[in-house]
Amino acid sequence: MINKVTSLFGIKYPIIQGGMIWCSGWRLASAVSNAGGLGLIGSGSMRPELLEEHIIKCKAATNLPFGVNIPLLYPQTDELIEIILRHQVKIVFTSAGNPGKYTSLLKENGITVAHVVANSKFALKADEAGVDAIVAEGFEAGGHNGAEETTTLVLIPQLRPLIKQPLIAAGGIASGEAMYAAMALGADGVQIGSLFASSVESSGHWQFKQAIFDAGDGATRLLLKKLIPVRLLKNTFFDEVVQAESQGASVEELKNLLSKGRAKAGMFAGDIENGELEIGQVCALIQHEKSAAELIENLINEFYKTANKMSNEWLL
Amino acid sequence: MINKVTSLFGIKYPIIQGGMIWCSGWRLASAVSNAGGLGLIGSGSMRPELLEEHIIKCKAATNLPFGVNIPLLYPQTDELIEIILRHQVKIVFTSAGNPGKYTSLLKENGITVAHVVANSKFALKADEAGVDAIVAEGFEAGGHNGAEETTTLVLIPQLRPLIKQPLIAAGGIASGEAMYAAMALGADGVQIGSLFASSVESSGHWQFKQAIFDAGDGATRLLLKKLIPVRLLKNTFFDEVVQAESQGASVEELKNLLSKGRAKAGMFAGDIENGELEIGQVCALIQHEKSAAELIENLINEFYKTANKMSNEWLL
Repeated sequence: MINKVTSLFGIKYPIIQGGMIWCSGWRLASAVSNAGGLGLIGSGSMRPELLEEHIIKCKAATNLPFGVNIPLLYPQTDELIEIILRHQVKIVFTSAGNPGKYTSLLKENGITVAHVVANSKFALKADEAGVDAIVAEGFEAGGHNGAEETTTLVLIPQLRPLIKQPLIAAGGIASGEAMYAAMALGADGVQIGSLFASSVESSGHWQFKQAIFDAGDGATRLLLKKLIPVRLLKNTFFDEVVQAESQGASVEELKNLLSKGRAKAGMFAGDIENGELEIGQVCALIQHEKSAAELIENLINEFYKTANKMSNEWLL
Repeated sequence: MINKVTSLFGIKYPIIQGGMIWCSGWRLASAVSNAGGLGLIGSGSMRPELLEEHIIKCKAATNLPFGVNIPLLYPQTDELIEIILRHQVKIVFTSAGNPGKYTSLLKENGITVAHVVANSKFALKADEAGVDAIVAEGFEAGGHNGAEETTTLVLIPQLRPLIKQPLIAAGGIASGEAMYAAMALGADGVQIGSLFASSVESSGHWQFKQAIFDAGDGATRLLLKKLIPVRLLKNTFFDEVVQAESQGASVEELKNLLSKGRAKAGMFAGDIENGELEIGQVCALIQHEKSAAELIENLINEFYKTANKMSNEWLL
């Protein structure tokens, strides 16, 4: 599959594994890269020295391109970037912040930069900052999300005419049919989070993975909109947030409720009821734990099956 | 374009015009039907005698199939159905309620019945009730919406394996690319609201249409979730609702704020600031007023262009 995204990153398939907190360390990233996608180490939940360890291990585990995702909302961003430069990581995905701040520095060091956005305004900012690719993440995605709540189906056609860079669709994609649909809408590739969070190589706790497999439709909701909106899986903590928000809880009250270490407790340590479980709506379509390689093989098979089916039905 | 949806309704293209309050009277419904889609008279904003007038005028304006949409949340449903039976309307779309209540009666009278759902539970209920087709409406759709907030991209693959009936995708569709994407996901056709609400033949006020053309991304939000969730366009009324909800307003307070006649004032009478403006997220992609016939022609041209493009790029 040769297109703008595979050429830009030097990968076989236009499939990016989203950099996720507590789930995507070197093991998942290298497995995805070895299977022909682009694996990303999610640095959002890592101290600088831990990121360093993951980069070193990832290099040992794959000779193929991989990258690091950096959410630009933590105080330690400078230190993370220093490590990325020192270890000559070739690909960086930035998210949740201003692409203007670090893109030049990364580009000057020969790094290919993609930035994650959820609206037109930030797509244009990313373009202006000189990024090489843009990830457009829709409302259905897990974890932190845009205030506009624009869904992937609406966001992709909105951004397509605005930017010349390769456009990567994220949010709601866990099958080759959805990948094909996103590309019909104008995307050049897809970023997939939830599906890989549930994979064998994900460092998420097995009980978190089980919660993903058990989830049906309506199992997630975008909450904490007074802080940074985040899509959460229903559990006791979720109910507490809903209750507080329904009563008009203030920013301060919500911060206290969220407290520290809640995401680690839920996704990494397996405190399924009181932890924060970040996952996309598409968890309703994920039923079994599979290896990253198997997931990618399925995605590609489904993609081509959909291409054949649609052509047989609709080609004039 | 021959498939399950065109065969079921006896139409040329698998395009349904969503039945909308204040926008889709006989003029729009007949224009859509005459152009090869399925036009629906939206009875939600009509007293029984007005619906009767619209049915009579629609029959005079087209010899092709058309239908009536009935939201099952108003007290006058029995009277509306009595008129539909008396005037031998052949197609009914029910929404916003329990499909079990009226489906048998309608089917016994030879009517083809489709029901609009936003989750698996109601899709199965509609199946059980014996409907002939199911409309799956995603979070991005305008007007009343499901509590699960599942987007079209996630909802269609969720419902596809559950039901055998033709599946019609709704929400976020205003182009042939999106129509093609929805069908790649497993839909047999599409229901389109916002685009037709903005058309020449829509009975929406010209200032409402202008507000649709002016809307950019993030211009709508799903609000009033303590009542029935509804997607609204930003204006003064919208701001008041957001403010009230942020402070934890009760059901009673929200009902008072919504008050009576707000939707008519906004969409039909053109009180753009204080009226209730129901529209889908996809309004960000609608720029110009076009006739229903032109819109359908564009949708079909874009659909086949996308089919050709995707086949050229990805067919092995």
